[in-house]
Amino acid sequence: MVVRMNNKELFSKWLSESGPEGDIVLSSRIRLARNIKDIPYPNNASDEDLLKVNTLIQDVLKDKDKVKLNYLSIDNMDELEKYIFVEKYLISPAHVKEGVYRGLLTNREENISAMINEEDHIRIQVFLSGLNLKKAWDKADMIDDLLEEKLDFAFSEKWGYLSACPTNMGTGLRASVMMHLPALNLTNNIDRMLSAISKLGLVIRGIYGEGSDSSGNIYQISNQVTLGLNENDIIDNLESITKQIIGQEKNARKRLVKEQESDLKDSIYRAFGVLKNAYKINIEEAMELISNVRLGIDMGIIDNIDPLTLNQLIVLIRPAHLKKIMDINSEGKDNDIKRAKLIRNRLL
Amino acid sequence: MVVRMNNKELFSKWLSESGPEGDIVLSSRIRLARNIKDIPYPNNASDEDLLKVNTLIQDVLKDKDKVKLNYLSIDNMDELEKYIFVEKYLISPAHVKEGVYRGLLTNREENISAMINEEDHIRIQVFLSGLNLKKAWDKADMIDDLLEEKLDFAFSEKWGYLSACPTNMGTGLRASVMMHLPALNLTNNIDRMLSAISKLGLVIRGIYGEGSDSSGNIYQISNQVTLGLNENDIIDNLESITKQIIGQEKNARKRLVKEQESDLKDSIYRAFGVLKNAYKINIEEAMELISNVRLGIDMGIIDNIDPLTLNQLIVLIRPAHLKKIMDINSEGKDNDIKRAKLIRNRLL
Repeated sequence: MVVRMNNKELFSKWLSESGPEGDIVLSSRIRLARNIKDIPYPNNASDEDLLKVNTLIQDVLKDKDKVKLNYLSIDNMDELEKYIFVEKYLISPAHVKEGVYRGLLTNREENISAMINEEDHIRIQVFLSGLNLKKAWDKADMIDDLLEEKLDFAFSEKWGYLSACPTNMGTGLRASVMMHLPALNLTNNIDRMLSAISKLGLVIRGIYGEGSDSSGNIYQISNQVTLGLNENDIIDNLESITKQIIGQEKNARKRLVKEQESDLKDSIYRAFGVLKNAYKINIEEAMELISNVRLGIDMGIIDNIDPLTLNQLIVLIRPAHLKKIMDINSEGKDNDIKRAKLIRNRLL
Repeated sequence: MVVRMNNKELFSKWLSESGPEGDIVLSSRIRLARNIKDIPYPNNASDEDLLKVNTLIQDVLKDKDKVKLNYLSIDNMDELEKYIFVEKYLISPAHVKEGVYRGLLTNREENISAMINEEDHIRIQVFLSGLNLKKAWDKADMIDDLLEEKLDFAFSEKWGYLSACPTNMGTGLRASVMMHLPALNLTNNIDRMLSAISKLGLVIRGIYGEGSDSSGNIYQISNQVTLGLNENDIIDNLESITKQIIGQEKNARKRLVKEQESDLKDSIYRAFGVLKNAYKINIEEAMELISNVRLGIDMGIIDNIDPLTLNQLIVLIRPAHLKKIMDINSEGKDNDIKRAKLIRNRLL
């Protein structure tokens, strides 16, 4: 199977646009978990059940006027393509490893998508640039309505939408923002801030979800509980806390300029110099340097580079994208060299 | 007093030319120590004696057809000018701090010079680019002949030329080469090599003479003894050992390419990136990075930079030059910022 990715399709739309508060909030995501009534969850379902779910959902969503969703069978993808979609956040690492009748629905811009037969029968996902939770929610809700017109979802008056995982019971909604918080880190305020957030019922993860490090000063912040709250409360709460974090990050940036201007400039310019010149570089270091340069752009210290180029690099330097773009056949050891070359080319 | 330095005069000639083996040997230097008979050495001389010496030497050497030497009184220099000449190796740090009737004779290219009333009455000095000891000796010998036509030197059949310092007795000749030995350092062979050299009666110093570190992988190697050998033996011996060291450095470079090519390229490109982008930098780090970039040029890894630009930087980044060029009035703390700016400008 040919990987459906030319240069125009390298990036999901949210990576190539700037949204509200885009200098600190990279993206907003809404995910809705739904299951069809009277069919077992995918981990207990027979192949027949899985096929039935897959067909029902495709019938409702594929190629509709309201949203042009294209269907891809995960079983039919080659390994590289699978992991490219994982790196684009369109499918989960778990979804890649499951069996037959797993699928992905996605629009051309890759900001509206749905996983079929992952942990739940369907997980709708909307990604928008910047702090844009309400608009993302509207889009997810529209998909949900399309489905609900034709399908009966598993639902109880007491528990709300039922889900394979108890933490998703209720609204089935997970709202999250991906934030770039370098100044809070540089001023040693990040841990205090993150611990305060977790007391407010939110979860903090690294850029690639559960168990991933906060590589490159990027943090995913999402609601923990979906039960007992309505969708608007969840979204309003996350948005309000996100705005407070934005305020703290902005204050930390002001303090950096005031108190450590020359150190700040030095580390930003050096990061830029190394990114543009290194002969080999691993992901961790690249993420760190990209973060520094991005901070430099946001603070007006560096001005000859498009911040979206850096957003894109965050995804392009990951193993599957790197392998695809740099045409790497052999395993492993020269990846750091290829990664450095990719970065140099993009920063020209 | 106006500092006699415009842009053309920023560099001594040896820094702006390339000589034989110029990728490893930056320069060759010959220094001859002489004293006039029956006048005490400067540290014991009266002001009257010092004036007499100064006058006698100026009368013989100043503005002669064979070598156009210009006279500068060190007493009349301002502090900045004094230290600029120290950084150009034309006068010694000690010479700057001594009293009246101290002087410097130098040609326009600043490759032939003489200190008057430093430790000895006169110290003739010739600097040439690359490995060029014999030619440097010829020039120093020519100056010596001019002096000997008119003056009686302190000389004994047993000890040769007499000198204020016993280590200079005999020929009064110190021959030295300044070598750039990064690969011997990177392959951890430098200490073994330097210890072998010192057993051969040679002295190794850092770039700025006695007590200075081997900053930027630059080493000064000179004869230790001037007594009991004739001038040609001293020069032949140093030249022969220098050639052996060149051979070892070249082998070490080949080994680096063979065994650690990607590490080597990476450190060279990164050094270049940091030099071209840092917002502030101290001398030690700058010397280290300049050394890496210079190695990159010599090995054909970097090709868009003139090695002489780097030779010049070695002198320009030192405190007095930096102060003069970047027009620094206040003391201290922003020097690292100015130094980084100077380097960025020169590497454009």
